[in-house]
Amino acid sequence: MTRVGDLRERELIDRIRRRLPPPPAWLVVGIGDDAAVVEPERNRIEVLSVDSVVDGVHFDRAFVPADAIGHRALAVNLSDLAAMGAAPRLALLSFALPATLPLSDFDGIADGLTALAARHGLHVVGGNLTRTPGPLTIDVTIVGTVKRRQALTRGGAKAGDQLYVTGTIGSASAGLSLLRARLTTDDSVLSTDDSRLVRVYLYPEPRVRIGVLLARNKAATACMDLSDGLADAVRQVAEASGVGAAIEADALPIDPAARARLASSGWDPIDAAIAGGDDYELLVAVRPRFTRRFEAAMRHADAPLTRIGSCTADRAVVVVRRDGREPRLSPLPEGYAHFRSFDALRVVPSDIEGR
Amino acid sequence: MTRVGDLRERELIDRIRRRLPPPPAWLVVGIGDDAAVVEPERNRIEVLSVDSVVDGVHFDRAFVPADAIGHRALAVNLSDLAAMGAAPRLALLSFALPATLPLSDFDGIADGLTALAARHGLHVVGGNLTRTPGPLTIDVTIVGTVKRRQALTRGGAKAGDQLYVTGTIGSASAGLSLLRARLTTDDSVLSTDDSRLVRVYLYPEPRVRIGVLLARNKAATACMDLSDGLADAVRQVAEASGVGAAIEADALPIDPAARARLASSGWDPIDAAIAGGDDYELLVAVRPRFTRRFEAAMRHADAPLTRIGSCTADRAVVVVRRDGREPRLSPLPEGYAHFRSFDALRVVPSDIEGR
Repeated sequence: MTRVGDLRERELIDRIRRRLPPPPAWLVVGIGDDAAVVEPERNRIEVLSVDSVVDGVHFDRAFVPADAIGHRALAVNLSDLAAMGAAPRLALLSFALPATLPLSDFDGIADGLTALAARHGLHVVGGNLTRTPGPLTIDVTIVGTVKRRQALTRGGAKAGDQLYVTGTIGSASAGLSLLRARLTTDDSVLSTDDSRLVRVYLYPEPRVRIGVLLARNKAATACMDLSDGLADAVRQVAEASGVGAAIEADALPIDPAARARLASSGWDPIDAAIAGGDDYELLVAVRPRFTRRFEAAMRHADAPLTRIGSCTADRAVVVVRRDGREPRLSPLPEGYAHFRSFDALRVVPSDIEGR
Repeated sequence: MTRVGDLRERELIDRIRRRLPPPPAWLVVGIGDDAAVVEPERNRIEVLSVDSVVDGVHFDRAFVPADAIGHRALAVNLSDLAAMGAAPRLALLSFALPATLPLSDFDGIADGLTALAARHGLHVVGGNLTRTPGPLTIDVTIVGTVKRRQALTRGGAKAGDQLYVTGTIGSASAGLSLLRARLTTDDSVLSTDDSRLVRVYLYPEPRVRIGVLLARNKAATACMDLSDGLADAVRQVAEASGVGAAIEADALPIDPAARARLASSGWDPIDAAIAGGDDYELLVAVRPRFTRRFEAAMRHADAPLTRIGSCTADRAVVVVRRDGREPRLSPLPEGYAHFRSFDALRVVPSDIEGR
């Protein structure tokens, strides 16, 4: 078996370059020089982000196929752009590769990454490859653009603003839990429902189109992606905006199959879905008087948006359950903000605590 | 002792933020949101690069102090901008941190990095921290700007163009060799000469000012930095430009102390200086009819430039030695282009082969 350590850096770079579409007109100097040179986009401001995925921390090569690793490395960055309302433009890749990584895995990573890039009209303009004695680590730097005064931030929500979330939550956690369970029962066959959950975990769809629609529409007062879980996103938006938030447990868009899977793992499905990471959905705050304009714009969205609660003047961040006679308020479960927790794969908190 | 694993991600980010100067007017959204938002610079094109340093590959924590690690992580990127003639503007940081890294080392890295950034008017606008079960890895993405049609590339040299190099070569290799030797003889005290060599290795000075002068001056037909050694740079410029090159051994600017150190390690000092990496100098090709204009501009440079040879119509890349009666031509020694060699610390080739 050929391994990446058997190839020269340039040969590996060529394997990525081969997968790229023809360079756009704004790319003055592409891959192969000391740096890339690009013509900036007129009348737009630039949105920049970097994010990395590490084997054993953000994914596990034992059950995540190579193309899903490449997909994820870019998706986490596209999700950050989406949360700012920016249209993707270019990316720089930085791979730290163990010498023993099979070349077929390297190719698979490149396939997953370049396929997602192509779907979003994003151009890979440069990068860096290095060897590492440690785990496979992929850093992606992404640059997008947005019109002046249209960038979405975390800090503009006010008390009374309605909170929406795109897609569903908890499916990625449920999918990851299924993949881990399968490791010990290799002969198990996934049902259609379970396949869907696994797919959500493996190939998250960053909400780029919705982010761009939100920026144009100007109805959103705050936006953030759920990469560290809904609980973390609600807390961050509330803190940056100087408000509190009340989330309605009954309103949460949790896939029934995910709910069943999370419950069968012994977790409270609502807590697990709120705290679980890897949902690359968007949390959006909308001023009530803009609700109609917002909902009209969202008819062009490629995923549903669900109203899940509202911002409050009281600074507490709570979840409201109406399963008994009286509504019960409880604090939002902890998310993944703890640096300490990053050395465990991102699953629901009880699982991390158990390690 | 406090370790980075004892802190939350946000607390670590705050330790970097605290070291940054007030944000520039063009920074619309800085650290703390999903992404940074910046106003592009008018009438300039953008130059982007990413580079990473890995403990045990590009430096060794056993003998490289923390501030030198931070300095290096940014210097390698500034050097790429310099090679393109770009003025530095902003950077994004991505750290993969072992949980056991002492917090004082984290602070030292931040000190070294932010001090170098400040000296070059570069602003850190965002980044990402993650845990890793592997070695400390620092990725820096850098963005600079240059006027249209002034970006320097590797590919514009023609036969007859003169080749220049900034500063000296071989000092970093000699300094690294001294640091490694000291590991086993802790009581040794460095001479003034040796301290200088160690300093060149630990705190490389990227040739940003010279790069900017070269871009304005328009006398250079090709430029590249020597991060992988002079031999590698000459080969890359020759290949990209479709020419050969003849390097004059006698003309090479090798510090006498470096020469002595490399010889005492049993290496041919010229081969070692040509092949050795970690010299963050620039290789520059200059059209003969622009030589006067070039030399006039270089009077404002902050390091000497030395003519070391010329480009040839013959595609061979050779070194010319005149130590005997007849000039001897030999192929340039191999540099560090082999991905395979990256798992050894960058020293002169014989050392790597011996591993």
